[in-house]
Amino acid sequence: MDSENAPNIRPALDGFRWESVAHQPYKQDGSAPFRDISRQVLFHDVELGCELRYFEMDAAGYSTLERHEHAHAVMILRGHGQCLVGHEVREVAPLDLVRIPPWTWHQFRASAGEPFGFLCMVNMVRDRPQLPTAEELATLRSDPAVARFLDQA
Amino acid sequence: MDSENAPNIRPALDGFRWESVAHQPYKQDGSAPFRDISRQVLFHDVELGCELRYFEMDAAGYSTLERHEHAHAVMILRGHGQCLVGHEVREVAPLDLVRIPPWTWHQFRASAGEPFGFLCMVNMVRDRPQLPTAEELATLRSDPAVARFLDQA
Repeated sequence: MDSENAPNIRPALDGFRWESVAHQPYKQDGSAPFRDISRQVLFHDVELGCELRYFEMDAAGYSTLERHEHAHAVMILRGHGQCLVGHEVREVAPLDLVRIPPWTWHQFRASAGEPFGFLCMVNMVRDRPQLPTAEELATLRSDPAVARFLDQA
Repeated sequence: MDSENAPNIRPALDGFRWESVAHQPYKQDGSAPFRDISRQVLFHDVELGCELRYFEMDAAGYSTLERHEHAHAVMILRGHGQCLVGHEVREVAPLDLVRIPPWTWHQFRASAGEPFGFLCMVNMVRDRPQLPTAEELATLRSDPAVARFLDQA
């Protein structure tokens, strides 16, 4: 349901779910470039031009390694994990802020022990993500810290 | 500092503060229509067209009762309080979602016992808030629940 048509006040439920917000697990098959991740669109407002989404991964889950023209503004909400932003790999914890600038490779990975979730603010109108080519992946892997991050799966 | 010029990853500090984010207490005098509130702009990104701010009130603090054309998308992060949205008064707690539609009277009030903080997503370009006239305030107060909410101060 678009948040414009939902009640103005939507209480949080247990386990990082919300009233009147659909829980959308990403479908995965053997070739999916992500693992055990779900999306909940908390706000989708034409007036704002932006959405606020909550993404969550199960322990050891990860998002797609991708880049795109649009930017992301992220706040970690639950658990611990790592993120890759460009060539930077960092441990992140609740309330940490992560900006994904345009055309910057990025990926989030949950720690082995617990679910990992974050808020992501993004433009409603946005371009489709690009996946890395084999050559781009080789360039990313040439940094040992990035290679270790990518090889966790 | 605009988040575009800040590091991409900004860790949270103790007490709902962040690295490279200015803490901006609102100046108040006897006539200020708010009490004990501060703002931190977490993301201010031209590409997104939106900001993400964190507002916090001390125990028993409150935001300005106001309305405007622009919308707000709010998530409670810390503590407990009440909000007024139009003629609706509700208790709110961490992770609850509150949408403030255009031209809707709204105010947030912290509980007596602890600080109360929330995220607020908003357009970067926005109109100035309006305060209620005496007549508009009387209309709001004609609802007993709203009158109780307003008279807590």
